[in-house]
Amino acid sequence: MSIAVDAEGGDYAPYEVVKGVIKAAQEYKVEITLVGRKDILHVLAGRHLDRLGMTIVDADEAIGFHEHPVEAVNSKPRSSIVVGTKLVKDGLASAFVSAGNTGAVFYAALSILGRIKRIERPAIGTILSLGATTTPSLLIDSGANADCRPAHLVQFAQLGNTYARELFGLSSPRIGLLNNGEEEGKGNRLAKESYGLLKQTKLDFIGNIQGYDLARGTTDVIVTDGFTGNIILKTIEGLGANWLYSLVQSGQRFSKAYRLSRQAMHRDMGVESWAKKVDYRESGGGALLGVDGNIVIAHGRSQAKAMMNAIGLAKRMVERHVCQKIKEGMYEQPRLHK
Amino acid sequence: MSIAVDAEGGDYAPYEVVKGVIKAAQEYKVEITLVGRKDILHVLAGRHLDRLGMTIVDADEAIGFHEHPVEAVNSKPRSSIVVGTKLVKDGLASAFVSAGNTGAVFYAALSILGRIKRIERPAIGTILSLGATTTPSLLIDSGANADCRPAHLVQFAQLGNTYARELFGLSSPRIGLLNNGEEEGKGNRLAKESYGLLKQTKLDFIGNIQGYDLARGTTDVIVTDGFTGNIILKTIEGLGANWLYSLVQSGQRFSKAYRLSRQAMHRDMGVESWAKKVDYRESGGGALLGVDGNIVIAHGRSQAKAMMNAIGLAKRMVERHVCQKIKEGMYEQPRLHK
Repeated sequence: MSIAVDAEGGDYAPYEVVKGVIKAAQEYKVEITLVGRKDILHVLAGRHLDRLGMTIVDADEAIGFHEHPVEAVNSKPRSSIVVGTKLVKDGLASAFVSAGNTGAVFYAALSILGRIKRIERPAIGTILSLGATTTPSLLIDSGANADCRPAHLVQFAQLGNTYARELFGLSSPRIGLLNNGEEEGKGNRLAKESYGLLKQTKLDFIGNIQGYDLARGTTDVIVTDGFTGNIILKTIEGLGANWLYSLVQSGQRFSKAYRLSRQAMHRDMGVESWAKKVDYRESGGGALLGVDGNIVIAHGRSQAKAMMNAIGLAKRMVERHVCQKIKEGMYEQPRLHK
Repeated sequence: MSIAVDAEGGDYAPYEVVKGVIKAAQEYKVEITLVGRKDILHVLAGRHLDRLGMTIVDADEAIGFHEHPVEAVNSKPRSSIVVGTKLVKDGLASAFVSAGNTGAVFYAALSILGRIKRIERPAIGTILSLGATTTPSLLIDSGANADCRPAHLVQFAQLGNTYARELFGLSSPRIGLLNNGEEEGKGNRLAKESYGLLKQTKLDFIGNIQGYDLARGTTDVIVTDGFTGNIILKTIEGLGANWLYSLVQSGQRFSKAYRLSRQAMHRDMGVESWAKKVDYRESGGGALLGVDGNIVIAHGRSQAKAMMNAIGLAKRMVERHVCQKIKEGMYEQPRLHK
């Protein structure tokens, strides 16, 4: 298995990406192909290349965060995002990980790898581990599709179902529809109509869930449109940073309390601490589900640790044949028209 | 000034409501009219009635949380929600506070008090105090309107602008549109079109804001549809409860650390602690803006302290003539058609 990594993507590329890649190669015993400017990567990776069996594939263009995804992908065939995605297409890499322009990674995957049959809208699934004592949940779509129709949400549920089954090892993941009320009949038009369709599937649809259920871990797959999903994800991220800031602020005046409280938070029951749970650096990024290949979209602000975790996620996706299982899974569900 | 309070609304009514009313009457020196079952309220309020100048208005019906708002309001003229709202209509109370069925409070206000001219959709504005060093923000609509058109979001911005000006004392509140990206052109169709309209207003529109801006306090008024707003609010609430739970969990094993960390969190710089910031019991509930009268919708799980804070909010709304200022404010803005 070889995993291609975009060495030009993200706020801290290429330095932190290379650092994360080296950690991942050691930790996960995985072959990595760095995609980016050959000369610079040679200098940065240096002796680790041979030692860890890493290779470099040259890509001398980069796509910036503010570039228009479609135009950028079409006009920059030598960009790291396009080159990396093509490695997956050509079977030279089992997965591609990028912390670059999300829209560009999405569009490159769509145009180069294509969609899996019967999936109209590939979506981003992000793992949330907020519950204090529970298993993680998958939030899908967490940002790819701002405007959705009910049939899209059903497909997100189907994608999430397969992903949660394979990655979390659940036989029948509980699927919840994120809504502004609990009862059937609540919600905006999209949610109401999606509810009706989800009931008709063979999925373990547990009904509507609300914002506070996110931290309760009562659901394995949280289905929502990409607009709401993106805002939710960033709200959680902002609150995590805010909490850490509050702790540091208070710590400046009560240094012993600060130290002890951090210790307490970090040692609790062997479970990851609360701060970690809401820290994007721990999450490993989102999986782009529904395209014909394994793509992991890491956070734009990823540093070495986040990149390492994103590569770990890509490795698990490959090992557990997520993409293949999604293809098979799409035929288990009745076709819905809406 | 007399404030009418729904003694039958909320999970802990009437006991915790009466407790909160007594606290509020003492704390804020405000006359309160309890609306509910006369006999029970007499027993509960007892000697405080005369001492604090409280009165009781009988309402021997109650509207449950799962009742259909329109049907319930129409079929229960003697319910506490209908009776309380009518006290405002008839000028016998300056405001009405309820922790009951939100939809019913909303519909009662709409049908009994009516909308302020040029406001198509009244909305709920909820104060968020998440920023570590900053002033609070108003989230509007935080739950009244699940499906919105762009013109509605502009009206939410106008309502929020007046509210933030009067309640936060800001001369020109910064208005942000909650979106899934920063640049103009990002978002779902509703957000994109709303952006275009907001630019045309005289408001201090600072553009799109994202989920993580909520905790940064960079915006005074956060404009969004009621579906997204409700989910955001409940996500924050859930995370707050989850954080407290984590702290308690860790505290069971490190009791000294737990105690000290709580102290540290509670004493920081005189600012309310983080836990308080995300605790609905502190928030005082949301203001229903755009109807012709002062209505405060408290959290359904409000206990005494939350009720007291909700009454405090109602008092400030009355003192600062929020409803009147909204009426005047609607004529300062150009009329938009969309």
